[in-house]
Amino acid sequence: MISALKRFLIGRPLKSNELGEQKLNKTKALAILSSDALSSVAYGPEQILIVLVTIGAAAFWYSIPIAVGVLILLTALILSYRQIIFAYPHGGGAYVVSKNNLGVNPGLIAGGSLLVDYILTVAVSVSAGTDAITSAFPTLHKFNVEIAIVFVILITILNLRGVTESASILAYPVYLFVFALFILIGVGIYNILTGGVSPELHPKIGTPVTGISLFILLRAFASGSSALTGVEAISNAIPNFKDPAPNNASKTLMMMGALLAILFSGIIYLAYYYGITPRAEVTVVSQIAEETFGRNFMYFFIQGTTALILILAANTGYSAFPLLAVNLAKDKFIPRMFLIRGDRLGYSNGIIILAVTSIILIIAFQAETEHLIPLYAIGVFIPFTLSQTGMIVKWIREKPQGWLPKLIINTIGAMISFIVTMMFFLTKFSQVWSVLVFLPIILFVFYRIRKHYEAVGDQLRLTTCEPLMAIEGNVLIVPVAGMTNVVANSINYAKSLSQDQIIAVYVSFERDDEKNFEEKWKKWQPDVRLVTLHSHYRSIINPLTKFVDTIEHKASDANYRVTVIIPQFIPKKGWHNILHNQSSLLIRASLLFRRNVIITTVPYHLKK
Amino acid sequence: MISALKRFLIGRPLKSNELGEQKLNKTKALAILSSDALSSVAYGPEQILIVLVTIGAAAFWYSIPIAVGVLILLTALILSYRQIIFAYPHGGGAYVVSKNNLGVNPGLIAGGSLLVDYILTVAVSVSAGTDAITSAFPTLHKFNVEIAIVFVILITILNLRGVTESASILAYPVYLFVFALFILIGVGIYNILTGGVSPELHPKIGTPVTGISLFILLRAFASGSSALTGVEAISNAIPNFKDPAPNNASKTLMMMGALLAILFSGIIYLAYYYGITPRAEVTVVSQIAEETFGRNFMYFFIQGTTALILILAANTGYSAFPLLAVNLAKDKFIPRMFLIRGDRLGYSNGIIILAVTSIILIIAFQAETEHLIPLYAIGVFIPFTLSQTGMIVKWIREKPQGWLPKLIINTIGAMISFIVTMMFFLTKFSQVWSVLVFLPIILFVFYRIRKHYEAVGDQLRLTTCEPLMAIEGNVLIVPVAGMTNVVANSINYAKSLSQDQIIAVYVSFERDDEKNFEEKWKKWQPDVRLVTLHSHYRSIINPLTKFVDTIEHKASDANYRVTVIIPQFIPKKGWHNILHNQSSLLIRASLLFRRNVIITTVPYHLKK
Repeated sequence: MISALKRFLIGRPLKSNELGEQKLNKTKALAILSSDALSSVAYGPEQILIVLVTIGAAAFWYSIPIAVGVLILLTALILSYRQIIFAYPHGGGAYVVSKNNLGVNPGLIAGGSLLVDYILTVAVSVSAGTDAITSAFPTLHKFNVEIAIVFVILITILNLRGVTESASILAYPVYLFVFALFILIGVGIYNILTGGVSPELHPKIGTPVTGISLFILLRAFASGSSALTGVEAISNAIPNFKDPAPNNASKTLMMMGALLAILFSGIIYLAYYYGITPRAEVTVVSQIAEETFGRNFMYFFIQGTTALILILAANTGYSAFPLLAVNLAKDKFIPRMFLIRGDRLGYSNGIIILAVTSIILIIAFQAETEHLIPLYAIGVFIPFTLSQTGMIVKWIREKPQGWLPKLIINTIGAMISFIVTMMFFLTKFSQVWSVLVFLPIILFVFYRIRKHYEAVGDQLRLTTCEPLMAIEGNVLIVPVAGMTNVVANSINYAKSLSQDQIIAVYVSFERDDEKNFEEKWKKWQPDVRLVTLHSHYRSIINPLTKFVDTIEHKASDANYRVTVIIPQFIPKKGWHNILHNQSSLLIRASLLFRRNVIITTVPYHLKK
Repeated sequence: MISALKRFLIGRPLKSNELGEQKLNKTKALAILSSDALSSVAYGPEQILIVLVTIGAAAFWYSIPIAVGVLILLTALILSYRQIIFAYPHGGGAYVVSKNNLGVNPGLIAGGSLLVDYILTVAVSVSAGTDAITSAFPTLHKFNVEIAIVFVILITILNLRGVTESASILAYPVYLFVFALFILIGVGIYNILTGGVSPELHPKIGTPVTGISLFILLRAFASGSSALTGVEAISNAIPNFKDPAPNNASKTLMMMGALLAILFSGIIYLAYYYGITPRAEVTVVSQIAEETFGRNFMYFFIQGTTALILILAANTGYSAFPLLAVNLAKDKFIPRMFLIRGDRLGYSNGIIILAVTSIILIIAFQAETEHLIPLYAIGVFIPFTLSQTGMIVKWIREKPQGWLPKLIINTIGAMISFIVTMMFFLTKFSQVWSVLVFLPIILFVFYRIRKHYEAVGDQLRLTTCEPLMAIEGNVLIVPVAGMTNVVANSINYAKSLSQDQIIAVYVSFERDDEKNFEEKWKKWQPDVRLVTLHSHYRSIINPLTKFVDTIEHKASDANYRVTVIIPQFIPKKGWHNILHNQSSLLIRASLLFRRNVIITTVPYHLKK
């Protein structure tokens, strides 16, 4: 039944050689990998104005030079990541670049930040999108957490169905959002050019503003830079592209950069020209839409697609997280299970872990995740800085043909990323300090896991092990609970394995019963030795374990192995299990995990 | 650690031969087995007045004849149960009496009602006691559910420590309550005799009342009879008494009857004489105490002991439920686990199941269980009726010396119990109808469980089984994941069991890898046959299961047994388990529960 439900939700399993069909073309890839970056247009410009409004509306003209700064940073990042794509065509992004060029620790810092960041992406963007939807239907507002969780589950199922299928569905809302914003910006600029908007609404660029400081400007710039999160996702997900993957990924990246630049500058410009002031209840984009169209169909269309893209921004996390996890798991820093492809060839364990952890975050923060945004931004700019620095080292070290312009691009990228990172620490320390606590913990866990895997590897490797001692023989212990067909079955099996060294063990709770049992046994199985143990405390396991220990001690001296043969009822129906004391399971668990004995389970399938 | 906590909470394990020290003397037995019956004095009289108040205060004098009726019923029940104790000295009460004399179905109806009833006892009395406490501290009122659950857990721990220890602790509050009520009744009657109470407060007995009807009177009688619940508990718990158990139990029962009669008639009389009207916020006992003492120390003493005894009434359920369950489990109507004595020689599974189910009830009803009281009362009067009827049949059938007076007592008991049962159905159908749904379901479950145990017994019995076929030989299948020390260990073990018929199975996910692996294997283990299976869907279990099926099919034709030898990592630390894909467990589960193959687990204990 569970298996049928699984088939219904995620579809039939795919063969390994169908992997090629699960690759993305550029249109679909752009949709699912840029949803995070593009969605930031919905809040990035607003973040700049929220900082400037603390000085006064006169300071709003500063949004224009700040936006220029953000665009320069965007250009540097896009060009740098384009180079990373070609240099590391197997994906892995910041983690692989930093690890290969700067060393393991910088690599793990980049990888660890991004892992956490993708979880934050999912939690933050789904919460924001849910909030946008329930703002329109206030009665639903108290169900924010539940609705957000349902969205996470829906996106998870889509992703478990496979990357192409989720891309086919998710492409529509992403392109609708881009289309809606293009119309908004187009109509807005047309209105301005035809004089439909009063130029009195905004302060002139260059107007002197009292109270403005470099600190405020840097803070506004850092806030605006949060619109650039998600830019690195494509470099992590190169293996999902159709061949030639690096070329396709690079073209998609350029396209994303262009769209992001146009939408970001368009929104900033309209906000400036309309003289829009950020308000708690209405977003900046919503105000611009209302100014441009009034409350007609287009207004609601823009509101709707904006809410949708905020939720779908989560999908970027779903595309990038599992692939980053594969890279970390290959290097043994996280559990091996992240390497396994699921029925639909996606890395389903990564997808499920991402879903579970982000649902936990949504519940923990009651779907109010706005104050996680700076944390989430710094979690991207740390890997940005590290990967650009890694590329600098690479160019200097390898000096391939035409390396100088490449070096310059990465140097500019690294410098600006580093400055933004520092700005976050300087201007928003109260919101980002926890990254300084979490990152060392994550690194510690990574190293502990790696250490365990290496220790296991050492113990398993044939060459490094002392040669195995030959096994001289076996002692077979059969715990018996009575004289039944089940016991006969186990004793028969024991006899078929070895003619001597079979010991039947009977644990008795009452003295009177022992003699009687021994006599009956002698008649029934005269050739099998019976040992009777008395249990004062009505436990089967304690006396049995002690007895097995004694035997094992003697046996190992003589290079004999001890096997305990346990009969196990398999009832016909699941609920019957509660009618049987599960002694077999308890005995098995207590012997197997603590003693050096082999456990053989002989099933006895009940027919009725 | 868990084991240390268990030791701390319930004490060291007891040896089976210490059972004698766990028996109760009369004083302790009276305390823990009569707490339910005695606590009903706190609400029984009130129940009568609540019905009469619907006619008017003038009708209150009817409480006196109704109380006389209840006392007659009490006398009949006590005498009848005294006879049951001597006739069935091994306990079991209504279940055993009805089953032996009336047949299995009446027995199961009595047993099933009582099982459910003891769960209701715990839920209802703890909820009522908690409510009495939090009424005194209104800020705690919203934590009623949590506080009630804590009380259930405390009583459970006490009972898991053993019956004598819980009796030693619980005896104090029970006797304090009896003592407090004796003072109350004594002082009250003294006041009346010395003329300290105006005789104007109450209507004269015999005052004509308009609107009174037989229906109302019967309803009031039925409500008052709910004070008799718990009378049957002693007959269930005879095995807990010191020898001579039946004599001690019978004396305890008579003592309980006397106490109950005195307290019940005292409270009814004072309530009548003081002209007390039942009120929602203040209980009748509390009003009597206030009239008698004013709000001084005695008033609060009575309130406090009343709250305590309501909670401790639950303990009667804890004493009777496990012993009733033992009787049902011996007859195979409920799971065998109820027969197992725990570390402290109590039937701990019964105690724990009772705790869990009553906590579920408390949560489900949010600790507001008043409307469960009629259900709980009818659940006692059905077994009352059945057991008395059973005794009638017994006397008529066996005709022992002096049987006629015994027959008369049981006949009166049976008749009154039957009438009360019918009154509940007639006057409170809306609250008790569910018993007509639950009892058939419970009987159905009892029979299903019995049928399963009988079917298992048939299949296990040596005589009824076709003789086992001799095992001609064994095929040993070793799934291998690579060429490691773990695999070498398993192969070595297989070789020590049988020199031929060992098949190593390798499941490969990629075609390229197969040839390579086969060649390496030939060099490493030239004498062990390797079969390589290709898995299209990246599952190890599916191809392996199919292969095992094929082998098993062939093997069973030749009377060979198939054993699958699975290596299992045992990491040094618990958390390491999440770093390993638990394929061994999955393979084991899917083969053992669905196929007829033997599973051998070879542990490989990791040292680091």
